[in-house]
Amino acid sequence: MPSISIKGKRMPASPIRKLAHYAEQAKKDGKKVFHLNIGQPDIATPEIMLDAVRNIDFKVWAYTPSEGTPSYREKLATYYNNIDYNIIPSNIIVTNGGSEAITIAMQTCLNPGDEIIIPEPFYANYNGFACMADIKIKPILSTINDGFALPKIDAFETLINAKTKAIAICNPNNPTGYLYSRQEMEALKELCLKHDLYLFSDEAYREFCYDGNKFISPMHLDGIDENVIVFDTVSKRYSACGARLGCLITKNERILEASLKFAQARLSPPAIAQIAAEAAIDTPKRYFNNVITEYSKRRDLLVAGLNNIPGVNCPTPRGAFYVVAKLPIDDADNFCQWMLEAFAYENKTVMMAPATGFYSTSGEGLDQVRLAYVLCQEDLKQALICIQKGLETYPGRTS
Amino acid sequence: MPSISIKGKRMPASPIRKLAHYAEQAKKDGKKVFHLNIGQPDIATPEIMLDAVRNIDFKVWAYTPSEGTPSYREKLATYYNNIDYNIIPSNIIVTNGGSEAITIAMQTCLNPGDEIIIPEPFYANYNGFACMADIKIKPILSTINDGFALPKIDAFETLINAKTKAIAICNPNNPTGYLYSRQEMEALKELCLKHDLYLFSDEAYREFCYDGNKFISPMHLDGIDENVIVFDTVSKRYSACGARLGCLITKNERILEASLKFAQARLSPPAIAQIAAEAAIDTPKRYFNNVITEYSKRRDLLVAGLNNIPGVNCPTPRGAFYVVAKLPIDDADNFCQWMLEAFAYENKTVMMAPATGFYSTSGEGLDQVRLAYVLCQEDLKQALICIQKGLETYPGRTS
Repeated sequence: MPSISIKGKRMPASPIRKLAHYAEQAKKDGKKVFHLNIGQPDIATPEIMLDAVRNIDFKVWAYTPSEGTPSYREKLATYYNNIDYNIIPSNIIVTNGGSEAITIAMQTCLNPGDEIIIPEPFYANYNGFACMADIKIKPILSTINDGFALPKIDAFETLINAKTKAIAICNPNNPTGYLYSRQEMEALKELCLKHDLYLFSDEAYREFCYDGNKFISPMHLDGIDENVIVFDTVSKRYSACGARLGCLITKNERILEASLKFAQARLSPPAIAQIAAEAAIDTPKRYFNNVITEYSKRRDLLVAGLNNIPGVNCPTPRGAFYVVAKLPIDDADNFCQWMLEAFAYENKTVMMAPATGFYSTSGEGLDQVRLAYVLCQEDLKQALICIQKGLETYPGRTS
Repeated sequence: MPSISIKGKRMPASPIRKLAHYAEQAKKDGKKVFHLNIGQPDIATPEIMLDAVRNIDFKVWAYTPSEGTPSYREKLATYYNNIDYNIIPSNIIVTNGGSEAITIAMQTCLNPGDEIIIPEPFYANYNGFACMADIKIKPILSTINDGFALPKIDAFETLINAKTKAIAICNPNNPTGYLYSRQEMEALKELCLKHDLYLFSDEAYREFCYDGNKFISPMHLDGIDENVIVFDTVSKRYSACGARLGCLITKNERILEASLKFAQARLSPPAIAQIAAEAAIDTPKRYFNNVITEYSKRRDLLVAGLNNIPGVNCPTPRGAFYVVAKLPIDDADNFCQWMLEAFAYENKTVMMAPATGFYSTSGEGLDQVRLAYVLCQEDLKQALICIQKGLETYPGRTS
């Protein structure tokens, strides 16, 4: 019997996965579980997008070009140009979800052993993509006391060496909801130009900015076009996570050429998702207004509710639909498991993501959890009560 | 301006891609181009599959489980058990096309620098997947004189060393159409057991076996379950290349566990494709009978037609929908380009895939092309006339 290689073994497991078993068991035991652990919104997909699916009229469900259909890329370019990205359709390579865009960029721009700096806490699956490309993530700590703002540029510079090839940010951030300011983006730009680094910008949550704050992409900055690769997805924008459609955007011709070879190897992105996403670009503005209004209310409710619980600290994020909160607990993994396994209030409980999975530095985030406000306000209220009651009786409470 | 790393640079370009430009130019010049270069069938997708797409009734286009939906995996298992694979649903991980199944298996089972033996000519994109995983393909030559049968086992053994972790076959074969016999499969099994190697079986063309020949999978062989990983796709079976839905199948629990981590990193395979593919499993038998009958006729027409052209040699394959033919030419890349760029007969020409792209050994396949019989018989007849006329006037003709 052959042995599995180290590559498969060292691939990190999904940190939330181990909790899934306890959530299932809780449901089997008749408990109602509020899922604040995942980024699967409850928001309806735009009808215009689903109608496009229902109205397909081809006879052969054929490959599309590896870089995406011409009509989708053209329309997508108008979407980006409406938000001042100043691109042309050939700057876009359509991918199997945002995940593949990140994978392709890592494979294109970094050699095995090369390093990429990412502010932590960061989206846990970056670890998996880095493992696949055999590259190393160097975390740089952002702190809850600073509301998870961009770490000081000096701190970045201490990490940069000959193997450093890129800096990656997720903006607005998953897991923290932090929205980088223009000043922070300009500072990142100067840093990347000074040290000749790629700037990867994961913009999955671009649409979700609150309180009138403006989203700033590196695409909005002057003089850094050759360094920038943007990752995007229709998953959150249109609540269409199952479409598995994303894209990679860059004005750097050499990156486009090399990335296209990875896209060609897997032949084609999904055809029907492209038809649907092309139609979705005509989603009326009121759809987004409604969604933003709803998410703002949920955020306000959740952040206020958390900060009202004794011992809890939760900064108010300006984007995405996540918060990271500090709890008076010894160990977030234990607490999240305990909430599912041993706790219920009026036969209800909450599933949260332990923040440890979003930190690469061992020991960080032990007393933090990520909560996704992807449930309606009434459910959030009940979830907050569960969290409060849980913290009152959790044996590992620290203060 | 940062420089692109070697990883992106050394990624092989799609060999047919460079011809695409000449094909476009030919069309702009008003020529009719018969596309025998790609595996995009003209066969209609089963109505039952497209109806399932048209009838979607969800409100949120949500993620599915990373390994695929329970109902699709269950139904898929019945499909495989009907052809005696003797599996359970949890032996299946649903993937973004067959491509991702191969990528995941290479990443799971081989370390950077490890080697995999593949009979050549082989599907050119294996080179890309190997580059991504940083592993090495060791080609072993199958020859047109043997009809591209499995190379002698002795020849495999001379290639095996401590870094060899797997043997991969594509059966029926792309590009040769060769269908491996039970005897050949048993010999491969013994070889893999003797040397403790994984056996990767790419079965994208399983449905396409002719003349009553039976398809033999390693899943049909005794005592090798722990070594075998099967790659499959709905692309060719249901002429649904654009669905981007495949799967990886293995009874080896450790491979499943490690592969699932790669699947989890990219979250989910496409949701609607799974709904459609689940429905497609009820495609009536007559659909396949009609397709097989049609492909058999095309194959007979193409092989006979090619062998009727002076200087051409084309074995009769028993599967898939490709043939590799030897032509009286100096250089297949030149010839295929010339056919598009400089040749026309009654304003028509043919696009073929130079076989050089399917060989890893330099200098092999120089006088061979791959032709996909994915066009109707009338078009194939006209394409054959073009090839004959082209060979009569091609300046690089050798005999």
